[in-house]
Amino acid sequence: MLIEGKPQRTIGVADDGCSVAIIDQTRLPHEVLRVALRTVEDAARAIETMQVRGAPLIGGTAAYGICLAMQEDASDEALDRAYARLIRTRPTAVNLRWALDEMRAALRNRPRAERVAAAYGRAGEICNEDVAICRAIGDHGLGIIRDIAATKPGEPVNVLTHCNAGWLATIDWGTATAPIYRAQQEDIPVHVWVDETRPRNQGAALTAFELLQQGVPHTVIADNVGGHLMQHGMVDLCIVGTDRTTRSGDVCNKIGTYLKALAAYDNAVPFYVALPSTTIDWAIGDGLREVPIEQRAASELTHVRGRAGDGRIVEVLVTPEGSPAGNWAFDVTPARYVTGLITERGVCPASEAGLAGLFPEAVPRA
Amino acid sequence: MLIEGKPQRTIGVADDGCSVAIIDQTRLPHEVLRVALRTVEDAARAIETMQVRGAPLIGGTAAYGICLAMQEDASDEALDRAYARLIRTRPTAVNLRWALDEMRAALRNRPRAERVAAAYGRAGEICNEDVAICRAIGDHGLGIIRDIAATKPGEPVNVLTHCNAGWLATIDWGTATAPIYRAQQEDIPVHVWVDETRPRNQGAALTAFELLQQGVPHTVIADNVGGHLMQHGMVDLCIVGTDRTTRSGDVCNKIGTYLKALAAYDNAVPFYVALPSTTIDWAIGDGLREVPIEQRAASELTHVRGRAGDGRIVEVLVTPEGSPAGNWAFDVTPARYVTGLITERGVCPASEAGLAGLFPEAVPRA
Repeated sequence: MLIEGKPQRTIGVADDGCSVAIIDQTRLPHEVLRVALRTVEDAARAIETMQVRGAPLIGGTAAYGICLAMQEDASDEALDRAYARLIRTRPTAVNLRWALDEMRAALRNRPRAERVAAAYGRAGEICNEDVAICRAIGDHGLGIIRDIAATKPGEPVNVLTHCNAGWLATIDWGTATAPIYRAQQEDIPVHVWVDETRPRNQGAALTAFELLQQGVPHTVIADNVGGHLMQHGMVDLCIVGTDRTTRSGDVCNKIGTYLKALAAYDNAVPFYVALPSTTIDWAIGDGLREVPIEQRAASELTHVRGRAGDGRIVEVLVTPEGSPAGNWAFDVTPARYVTGLITERGVCPASEAGLAGLFPEAVPRA
Repeated sequence: MLIEGKPQRTIGVADDGCSVAIIDQTRLPHEVLRVALRTVEDAARAIETMQVRGAPLIGGTAAYGICLAMQEDASDEALDRAYARLIRTRPTAVNLRWALDEMRAALRNRPRAERVAAAYGRAGEICNEDVAICRAIGDHGLGIIRDIAATKPGEPVNVLTHCNAGWLATIDWGTATAPIYRAQQEDIPVHVWVDETRPRNQGAALTAFELLQQGVPHTVIADNVGGHLMQHGMVDLCIVGTDRTTRSGDVCNKIGTYLKALAAYDNAVPFYVALPSTTIDWAIGDGLREVPIEQRAASELTHVRGRAGDGRIVEVLVTPEGSPAGNWAFDVTPARYVTGLITERGVCPASEAGLAGLFPEAVPRA
């Protein structure tokens, strides 16, 4: 997608042929800062500090992290160490593990001398596959937006989204945003309600940024507002992403997603989740009981980063000195509140039968 | 309640006998700044800029605003002008109108020479009445907390609250917080989940501040978190305030309240609303259709105020330059999601029959 009018991806091999270029997303929306990752530790830290975030981009970064490890030492031990280091960067995202397993499988039985080239090859494929998957999600989601647009000719379709499941969370296109960008390409008028997404403000900082860069009409709202808008007919549909979806269709996504799903259900607003099938955890049936929910530092809530009047990026304390804060990063939306799952193979009900219908080969054997 | 260990009220006549002392709540939690209001315009601006906020305190400030107007000019015209100026400061709070009507009724048929003294007298009574009302709300809500405490001996009762319906929103005690402070007095262990309450952060800035000053255990959370906590049994009850409650029990309160009520309902967590009967709008039956919802400046969302590392209070921009933002300040929680209303006369169902049972004299005649 576009930054300052130029088509870009969120991650790629730099001109030196080995270091990995990312955009430091903690500096957005105020500054587009490119960062070079040169070691597996750089890659792990980029994930931990959320310079890169979003399930598919975490997977891509982890894949390139293995490449960087192989550059330094292509032994089995180095591969295991890199895998172990990268797997513990974020506990919730399931396709972090998927990407690392893919990389290990591609390298394990290969002579050391070939591992570096093989690693870059497979990491590049993982990224290209993700772009194709997101584009396909966009095509399937486009149908849903087109159907709604047909019911209100001349008026924009109002889409509410939470957090950033945009192209910044993937390699390109995004998941939740892909149908929106496809609709824009097809000249279907769309307006996006962008949930701010406290505490890290990924909506206000990232989704608004990419929609602005892309020229998609949008309005940033506090996370508290969506219910009110839905009560008053101002939301035609919700589309969110997911970090992990269970085989039963329970959706683990950024904290607060569940509240929007409840409001959508209460007001008969369709609530869709866009996901690459790599984020389906076929081993888990009950999302509420089984998905581990990451707790992050309280400082993410007590301090807010932004641009001061003098242009400097500063962090300000918003709570009283001495008040504790709790920071759960994800929640689980039970499948019964999800209208449908938009995958690269099509749209299906959020249920075991729905997912098995689209991905029969992935269903675990009893 | 306590600030720095000293019992205080949020508003009162200053030592000079005529100016009105308030705490500038826009400086909290970082600084306790006392401000003197000397004119009706000062009072109106204090309400508009939210130096004072919360339905009962807005009413008290408006009452003293009439006093300040009478100081300057005790004519009927000045009274009407002051009424007109003050009534348009905030559109949603119903007891702003109530307090102004009380003041006008107390002054209208009185000789000019007596109006100043009568105004201060009536404004003082309005404040004292509010303190008594909040204390009574506390006593009735205490029963609910005590019953829950009995089911989990030795463990704290976890109360979730949204925004600030604390003593800073009233003259003393608060509405939603009154039962909590009463429980503290009775040595019932209580822990409060404090919703941050974007965009103005009244929870993080004000509720956390007063709980900290009062020594009540609490944890600040993002507005997105409550649903997750309720799904996992970490909330025993919700208590929120209200700016306006319809005769049918629909509750207009700070934006986001509705989302928490939905989550409480979905997880069978009791959801109570604490209110002085002055905030009941007997003229309105359908909250969703009839309560006007204030929209405030987008800058309240796009900019966050806090304390920088160097101690200065600064505002930082958190959205991309150029992204529009929408700022609806309240929403309406339909009565069906409200477990009960805690009033100064007791707890009742959120329904026309429930409210009429407690306040038969107030029911409009058909």
